[in-house]
Order: sequence, then structure tokens, then C-alpha cells
Amino acid sequence: MSVKRHYEREFVRTFFTSPTAVEGEDDSAKMVKSAAQLRGMQAPDVWVPDNEDATAPSMRDEGVENIVEVVSEHGADFPGEIHPRVVWHRERPTTRYQGFQQMLEIADPDNGAVEYIDGFVIPEVGDIDDWKKADEFFTIIENEHGLEEGSLSMSVIVESGEAELALGDLREEMGKPSNNLERLFLLVDGEVDYTKDMRAMTPTGELPPWPELRHNTSRGASAAGLIAVDGPYDDIRDVEGYRERMTENRAKGMTGIWSLTPGQVVEANKAPLPPKTGSWLLQVGDREIELESEDGRQRYEGNEVSLEETGDGEYVLRVGGDEQQLDEDELREELLDMTAYVPSMDDIVDSMEEFEAAKEAGKGAIAMTQATTLAIDGVEIDISKDRMWDEATYQAAQTPITLFQDVYEHRPDQHEELEEMYGADVVERATNVGN
Amino acid sequence: MSVKRHYEREFVRTFFTSPTAVEGEDDSAKMVKSAAQLRGMQAPDVWVPDNEDATAPSMRDEGVENIVEVVSEHGADFPGEIHPRVVWHRERPTTRYQGFQQMLEIADPDNGAVEYIDGFVIPEVGDIDDWKKADEFFTIIENEHGLEEGSLSMSVIVESGEAELALGDLREEMGKPSNNLERLFLLVDGEVDYTKDMRAMTPTGELPPWPELRHNTSRGASAAGLIAVDGPYDDIRDVEGYRERMTENRAKGMTGIWSLTPGQVVEANKAPLPPKTGSWLLQVGDREIELESEDGRQRYEGNEVSLEETGDGEYVLRVGGDEQQLDEDELREELLDMTAYVPSMDDIVDSMEEFEAAKEAGKGAIAMTQATTLAIDGVEIDISKDRMWDEATYQAAQTPITLFQDVYEHRPDQHEELEEMYGADVVERATNVGN
Amino acid sequence: MSVKRHYEREFVRTFFTSPTAVEGEDDSAKMVKSAAQLRGMQAPDVWVPDNEDATAPSMRDEGVENIVEVVSEHGADFPGEIHPRVVWHRERPTTRYQGFQQMLEIADPDNGAVEYIDGFVIPEVGDIDDWKKADEFFTIIENEHGLEEGSLSMSVIVESGEAELALGDLREEMGKPSNNLERLFLLVDGEVDYTKDMRAMTPTGELPPWPELRHNTSRGASAAGLIAVDGPYDDIRDVEGYRERMTENRAKGMTGIWSLTPGQVVEANKAPLPPKTGSWLLQVGDREIELESEDGRQRYEGNEVSLEETGDGEYVLRVGGDEQQLDEDELREELLDMTAYVPSMDDIVDSMEEFEAAKEAGKGAIAMTQATTLAIDGVEIDISKDRMWDEATYQAAQTPITLFQDVYEHRPDQHEELEEMYGADVVERATNVGN
Repeated sequence: MSVKRHYEREFVRTFFTSPTAVEGEDDSAKMVKSAAQLRGMQAPDVWVPDNEDATAPSMRDEGVENIVEVVSEHGADFPGEIHPRVVWHRERPTTRYQGFQQMLEIADPDNGAVEYIDGFVIPEVGDIDDWKKADEFFTIIENEHGLEEGSLSMSVIVESGEAELALGDLREEMGKPSNNLERLFLLVDGEVDYTKDMRAMTPTGELPPWPELRHNTSRGASAAGLIAVDGPYDDIRDVEGYRERMTENRAKGMTGIWSLTPGQVVEANKAPLPPKTGSWLLQVGDREIELESEDGRQRYEGNEVSLEETGDGEYVLRVGGDEQQLDEDELREELLDMTAYVPSMDDIVDSMEEFEAAKEAGKGAIAMTQATTLAIDGVEIDISKDRMWDEATYQAAQTPITLFQDVYEHRPDQHEELEEMYGADVVERATNVGN
Repeated sequence: MSVKRHYEREFVRTFFTSPTAVEGEDDSAKMVKSAAQLRGMQAPDVWVPDNEDATAPSMRDEGVENIVEVVSEHGADFPGEIHPRVVWHRERPTTRYQGFQQMLEIADPDNGAVEYIDGFVIPEVGDIDDWKKADEFFTIIENEHGLEEGSLSMSVIVESGEAELALGDLREEMGKPSNNLERLFLLVDGEVDYTKDMRAMTPTGELPPWPELRHNTSRGASAAGLIAVDGPYDDIRDVEGYRERMTENRAKGMTGIWSLTPGQVVEANKAPLPPKTGSWLLQVGDREIELESEDGRQRYEGNEVSLEETGDGEYVLRVGGDEQQLDEDELREELLDMTAYVPSMDDIVDSMEEFEAAKEAGKGAIAMTQATTLAIDGVEIDISKDRMWDEATYQAAQTPITLFQDVYEHRPDQHEELEEMYGADVVERATNVGN
Repeated sequence: MSVKRHYEREFVRTFFTSPTAVEGEDDSAKMVKSAAQLRGMQAPDVWVPDNEDATAPSMRDEGVENIVEVVSEHGADFPGEIHPRVVWHRERPTTRYQGFQQMLEIADPDNGAVEYIDGFVIPEVGDIDDWKKADEFFTIIENEHGLEEGSLSMSVIVESGEAELALGDLREEMGKPSNNLERLFLLVDGEVDYTKDMRAMTPTGELPPWPELRHNTSRGASAAGLIAVDGPYDDIRDVEGYRERMTENRAKGMTGIWSLTPGQVVEANKAPLPPKTGSWLLQVGDREIELESEDGRQRYEGNEVSLEETGDGEYVLRVGGDEQQLDEDELREELLDMTAYVPSMDDIVDSMEEFEAAKEAGKGAIAMTQATTLAIDGVEIDISKDRMWDEATYQAAQTPITLFQDVYEHRPDQHEELEEMYGADVVERATNVGN
């Protein structure tokens, strides 16, 4: 029903890069070796032995050898896909030819790695004609090495204005008989080089947020049946910031993100999965505060909101600098507007099952209710939120479940952790609902 | 002077959908019958008997009959345009053929409805070639039924990445001799299905804001001489949120919005019209607080801003956590920066008339002044804001007036309510200014 | 390495318009004469004698004469480029022909001005075919007057949805043999007319922020090797607002901005240059507060954040309504997250030199550290921020330095002011680093 995808996985949560050859170590392949042995939540959906920016130019020949050696040995057991990044530049033919040679060598069946290589990542692409040059090299390599044409997938790093514009041409170009662009897989934003290419500056040197780039990447992926992935989040220490970035990205339809460490991989593998338990949010100004759940009550502990009962069923609600005198119904309305519920995996599965049953019984729409008791300054108020579910709501709500099912199907190494997270019962129902 | 529009109305404020056939009611046409009899502010500019998502699939044949019956009977008296929505899907030929059959039946002159039908709404369109398929069906239907080619207008729901990309092609494609895309009328965003198509997720399940989609829809409309309409606002209870959404949309050039109830129609018909009386805003942090007008003074009642006179013409102004010691001129500057004036219909007409007179007298630019007295914690300060008006300012300010005039021309059923809102004198001056 | 630029300057900070002929003055050329004699920080990078909106229609013939006279006399000594704006409109052939005639006259070598004219600014352009019509007139004028084909550069004002869409076509169209669009130079947003064209409205009449337009202009410039310039900032009094707009623009890669007065020119010439001294920011909610530097300590003076030592190495940190009990390490982490450093010109040059030395020594990445002592409510905490610099960071950080070097090369009249701002030593190091 949606645009046809030419690859097996429907979602990619994690794009993890490792330097292919590190200078000054006893074993220059140390980083790729340890990455190749990651499993479970620490293992990415897509692993990228990075023979471009993460590896010093002088070490890249050795990097190619390391990729071949490590993937030959560990590729069979690696739970995710493997897509080495080679060098490329829209403005430098020499670099493009080097990229071709690196791919030709890594994909040589005599070297034993290619059967575990799913594709290559091409950085620094330019306009669509530049993408075609890379695609043509893939085609030549496949023919030269007796591989099926189109069997190596191609992912690109979008890190120039030209490449961003090319995102609008993909759907149209991918069908043409003169190329094999159907091999495209991931569209990955590269904000550091994009910032340089756009000549953008911020006072502190931190990266601009580039919301339009992310939208255009996500839309390009949607229109062409590809997968959108956000670029690296440099501040490895800042787990909260990484999570916020991912939440923002998912609201744009960009489910995947770059990970620089196994710790970031764990965060990014888990982030798009619905939570184990639901929670209530209170919106105060621009902030959303998660309420403390206790004995079925949602307790607000801060001091930006206060609530007082003044007798005769009247209440005084203070939010920031504002104060309102309200009766119980008005108070309930006001609190309804200020609260939101974050459903758990269990809740989503429940709602979907309920809607499916209703549809079976010939109903097109049903109301789903979420009720709780809010407790603010000791005053307790029952609230209950209704939401109409129709076919469209059902299908939109299905996205996290489809993602979960995709993960469950392609990542058996994560089954144990998923069952620990959710319990076996929820996992089983979630794998079956909607099918 | 602007892009030529191929339809009579220049603005559409409201796009109101009704289920065409409701199961389990005595009369399945109940909803369309009551919608067809709406008048005045409760009647939309565009009424959409919805034979797609709002109507259960099993009821859609009956829906077609109901449309024919109700529009034949009530169409002549309905004050807005009538554009039924039929089924369509970019990925499903069977659905497209059903949509064709529905239109063919509704537009059959023997059924008596087509003379009141202004066009059809096509949901779930894909790239521009998909739009052309729908357009071709319109052309066939027009020829088959002896209607003038191009007389049925076509509106689309943009609810996929492909359709969003197509918005950039319209201007170029509409001129081509091989299609009749000049029949295009409304570009309507459909954020529920768009969210699904983009595979976007939010923690609470609420829709992402999609600012880029709305921008691109509005820009596509501007470039091709069409009208941009935002999608449904599900939380019917939340009038304030609906208004905020419309204010945001108008700042993007998207004047119209979907309405799900007659109550929402009233809100959306009134929202783009300038207010009866002007008001002053105080900007505190990210919030804009409307001041209380009283005896020509604008009184601030909150407790986030405080002002104290400390003698010797010195003042202490506290805003949130910040405190400043200021003399009277500095205080006035500071308050000028913090305030903004929302002009009334009367103010806009005044300014336009004044500028027209100045232009007549050979002046290219004049200063318009807005003065008042602010009262904060009992301290009173006179402020006065100047704004330069030149030809460009004049023309930009004209948009709400042009909209008002368009409403006045095409919606006689709203004259009475408009005169109640503004008074007959302001209505008369507003209908004449700028012509 | 980047897209080839066809003009000498790489950056344009300032685009300053002057009315070409003012009615009712003793000397109608008064404004252009005084503009032509601006020097140093008051002189713009690009000066635009404006024979369109800034000049009354009845005065435009005289405006052409004034341009010729003033540029002939003062052009040789003017330190910036000179690009008169003529009339043009995508919907009005007569206006386009007037624009052609104005350019033909101004560029006539017999009039003596053309040797100081760098190009023309074309307002109100439409889709790319409209841009080609203007380009064709340039070509005819060059041939008619024996000027080298392509020697006059063309800048456009993007003030319609069509023109915004054309930004996506430039890279492809500029190479075609049937046009000379390689003459393109500046892409300037014109938000007043754009707002009118998009039929957008805001309650107060102030311009919408149009973030997508600015992104698309900047991206179009990046992809086609051009320079993006933001439109006029009307509120001349509001220097702080003008600065904030420029900071926002630079984060979008839009370095230049329109200036309406020599005062705005000074602000806009200085704004993209790194500061003389570094500073620390404290992020509180959505606000960034610059800390007071004193004896190597960064002192917070507000009352939204408070810090108290409670003994046993425990601290209480209050931010807005939130309160946290933290030990010293947790406190340091929290404050690290809340602070950011704005590097000075000197800091940037230092970091670049350090990275260059490391690269020379075979290192691909180094950590740069910024340390200070925060003082909040008398409690002092040492913090130290590390940032990894690799080749990509280095190149991104280089943008302000490249801009500085570009300014230094092309604006000798600003050398003295630059040396006063930074000191001769920093200026010298900044002109040499990275080459």
C-alpha cells in the first residue's frame, strides 16, 4: 500500500561508524574488531566501518584490508547489516576514483568479505548526476565480480545544498532504465559538513538545528521508499540531549540516527520503541513535566503550578504568573488542556486490538478513554481524556508497532532484552497485532 | 497583477466535511441534510459531502445516492460552494476507478445535482502524474455528460511525501496542453495520513506540527494561483488551540482550514477577519498578553512584570527574573519594544484611506502613529508607536481587507452578522477602500 | 573544493539601498551622493542606488540621471561594489521593458558610469524563465555597449512563491548554453512583497518570520555558488532585534542582510565578525544569559538560578521552579550542560593553529579545552569544557575566519577599524591562519 521498498528491513534505528584503521595501536583493526562483535542492544541495525572521515587519510589502504579481514571473519555472525563507508567527493574526481577502488577491493569475492557486505555508504554526494556516478561504479563492480546487478545497496550522506536538492528528484530518477538507483537504501544527514557547505555560523560553534534539511531528507525517503537517518550527535556525554534530538526526529519521520559509541547505539536502539509503562505529562509554559505516578494518582511535585480548594466547590489554580478562580468543571477542563498521556506499548496494543474488534463489528470509529487522578498540592481531581480512533488514527498509531515487529523479525539477538523490557506477554501480543 | 486564478472566490476560509451516509440512523443522509441547510457564519465557504474517510466503505454507494438527492434538493440555496470528496489512492487502481465511478454518477445531469456541484475533492494523491490521472477522469466525465471541459474544479488532499513534492511542479504543469490541471482549486493538507505516510511518531500520539508541509502547500498555492487549506483539528473541544493554529497558518499564507463541526465553521469563518476593536499586547518572554483596555489606558494585571517609580524620574522594571533601573526615556523605549498593537478593522481602513490620500498628494511614504497609556502597578507611561507605510506596506496590509471584500461579495448570507460584528459604517467603508 | 563562484568577493555582509531621486529636495540626488561617500564600517559591501520601491515612480527618470552622474563622479573611490536596482515585474511586460531601458542608459559607456557599475538588481522576479528574460536583456546591453558578455552581474529579489521555487532550479539552469545565468551574484529575500504575494497575515501586521524561505534562499545560493542576503529590517530603532535576526540568519548560512541606514550598515558589517573577547553563556529555560566576567570568574547576577552549598560537599541548585540536591560532580555536570562558550577571534585563531600543528604531526583529532570558574550566589565551581576537533570541525570553524579574510582583502578602508577592534596582532594572525 505504501511506496515499494527494495530492501529487507523497513526501519533502521542505528547507524554506527567505526574507524577502519587506527594509527599507533598494536592492532590498527582494534576498533572494527570490537564493533564486529557487538550483540543485542549494543549492536546497531547498520554497522559502518568508516574508511572516510573517521580514519586518517594515510591509514585508508590499511583500512580496506582491515574491513576485508574483519568482515570475512565476523560478518557471518554480525546481527545487523554491514555497509562500509568509502571516500567520495562531488568536486574531486580523484577522490571518487579512490572510492571506486576501495569498493572494488572490498567487494572482491576472492577476499571473502563480500557475502556479508550489504552495501556501501557514499559521503559528500552532490546533485543527482553525482549520485549516478557512484551508482555506475556499483554496477561495474557487481559485473566485474560476478555479483547480481543491484545487489549492493547504496546509502548516501547528504551534506551539501546540492544533495539536499537532489532529494526531490529521487522518486523520478530511480525508475529510469539508464541507472540502478533502486539500490538506494539510507539517506543520512551529515550536519557538520553541511554547515560548512552552507557557510553557516553560530556564536558558540555548535551546529545549527537544520529543521528543513531533516524534513527534506525524511520526505525524500518517504517519497522514494528509503530510510532517513540523522547525523552524529557529538556531545556523547549528553544522553538527554541525544534523546531529545531523536524525539524531534521521529516527529519528522526520521527514525534512524548516527551513533558514535556503543552507548549511543543502546540509546538509539531503544528510543523509538514505546515505553514499558505509560505516563502523564503536565504542560507548563513550553515545558512538559512528567508526573509522578503513585497509587493510581499522578502527583505534581514542582512549584510552577499550585492548586487550592477555597470551599463551595471553588478552586484557585496558579500557573506561572497567572491565577484563575474556577469551579470543578472549569478546573477539569483546564487540567485536561494541560495534560497529555504517553501510552505504553501495552496501551497501544490494547487500543489497536479494541479498534480491530470494533471494525470487525462494523464500526468505523470508537472513542478510547484514558482516565486518572491528578494530585496537585494535595488537591485531587479525576480527569478522563477521550480520543476518537478511526482507520487513519489506527494506521498512524501503528507506526511504532510496525517498527517493533520489524526489529523483532530482524534482530533475534535482541529478543531477550525486549522480553526483559516489556515482559513476554506484551512482546507476544505486540508481534501479532495488526497482522 | 498576481497569478491568474481560474475560480470565482479568491479566499476560502472553511472546508467543512460531512459523512454522506451514516449507518444505523433512520435516515442515512441525516448529516448531509443538516449540513446543506447551514446558513450565515455556520455555513462554510466550501462544503464537502465526504464519501471517503468520514463514511464507512460499506456505505459509500448509498453515500453517492445521498449526495445526489440532497444536493439536488438543497444545492440551489446553499450559500457556499459544494465539492464532494470521492475515494482515490495513488497506490490502488481499484480505488481510483471507484472514485471515477462515484464522480461519474454524481455529475450525471439526469440526476439533477451537477448544476450545484462546483467540483470534487481527490484525497491521497501521489506525484504529479497521479494528479493527471484524476484530471483525465474529470475531463472524460465532462465530455461524457456534455459539461464544459474544465468546468468542474479539482481540489486535492496532500497527504504523502510525493504529493508534497508535486506542489513544486504545479505552476509548470498547469499550462501544458495535454491536461486540464487549470481546474485545480484547493490544496488541502491531510496531516493524519501524511504522518502515517512519513512514518512519524510522537510520544503522546498527537500530530507533529509539520511547518514545512504547510509552507510548501501555501507556496505551491501562491505560485499556481490556488488556495491553501490546512487539515482537520481533531480536538473539537479546544477552541483556543484551533484559533492559535489558524493564526499560525495565516502567517504562512494559508487562510483556509478544515472544519469538523458547525462550531468550528463559525470559528474559522470569523478568525481571518480583523477584530472589531484594536488591542495592545505585552510580550513577556515567549508569551503575548493582551492588556485590559480601560478609559484609554492599557492595564497589565499579571505578576510577571512589575514597575515601580523610585523618585527623581527613575523607575525599576522587573520582567520575569530580570530587574532594570531606568529613567523615563529608557523605560519608554523598553516598553515600546515589549508592546505591539493589533489593529481593528476600523484602524486598517483608516490607515489605508490615509495612505491613499497621501499617495494622491504625491507622497510615497507616511508615518502612522498608534499611541496609548500603559498602566503597570499603578504607574502610567505614555507610549507612541510609529510605522512607516509605503506602497508595499499598503499592499501587504490590504490582504485582510481583500479577504473581507471577497467574503462580502460571495456570502450575502453573512452580511447581517458582519454588520452586527462591525457596525454598518465600518462594513461600508471596508467594502469600498482600496478599489 | 566548493562550488565555483563567478565573482570576486566570497561574502557580502551588507546590501544598502538609497533612493535615487527624492522629490522636494533642492538636490534630488542628495541621498545617492551622501551614500556614495560612505567609507569604512559605514560603507556597505554592496551599494544599491534604488530606482524601484525607494524612489517614487514619477522620479525614476531623474533617478537614472542621478545614478549616472553620482557613480561617474564617486564610483572610482567607492570601497564596495555598486549594483543599482531597476524596475521589473514578472507579471508586467511594460515594467520589464522600463527596467531594460533604465539599465541600457545607466550602462551606456558614453555616460561614464558603467566602469564602476558591478551589476544590477532585478526585483519581483518570477519563475526561472522570468530570470532568463532579465538575463537576456543584460546580454543585449553588454553587446550593444561593447561590454564583455557576462561582465555585468545580476542579483535578484526573491519576493514571490514562483521565485522561491526557481531557487531549486538555478544550479541546473546556470550551465545551459542558451543563457548567461552565470552572471548571478546575490539572492536577496524581499519579505514585505513576499508576504503580500503569499497573502499572509499577522495580527499586528508585523512580517512573518519565513524561516523556510530563508533556508531555501541560502540553500539555493550554496548549490549555485551565489550569496544569500536577507531583506530589510524595518524597525530601525531596534538594534537588538536586527542583531538577533542576523544571528538567526548566519545559522542558516545567510551571511548578508539589507541595510536601510548607515547605522544599520555598521551593525551588519560588524555582526558576522567574531567578537574581540570570548564570553560564557548560561542557558536558563529558553534564554541565554551572558555571564559577567570578573577576575577570571563568570558571575551570574539574575534571580532565576540560585545555588547554595549545604555542607558535606552537597549543593542545592534551583533553576526556575526546579530544585535539585547535588554533590559536587553532579553539580559540575549540570552546570556544564547549562553553559556554553562564545569564542573570540583570538580563540578561533588559536584553535585553528593548534589543530594545524597537530595535523602536521600526524594527528587527525585533538581535544580543545575551555575552562573557567562559575560564580553563582557566591558559590564558585570550576568547569572545563572539551570539544573534539577533527578536519570537519576545523573547516566548519573556518567560516568566520574566511569571511574575515575576505573582508580584509576587499575592504582596505576598514583595516583601521578592524585593527582598533581586535588589535594589530590578532588581525595579522587571523589574516594568515588557514592559508
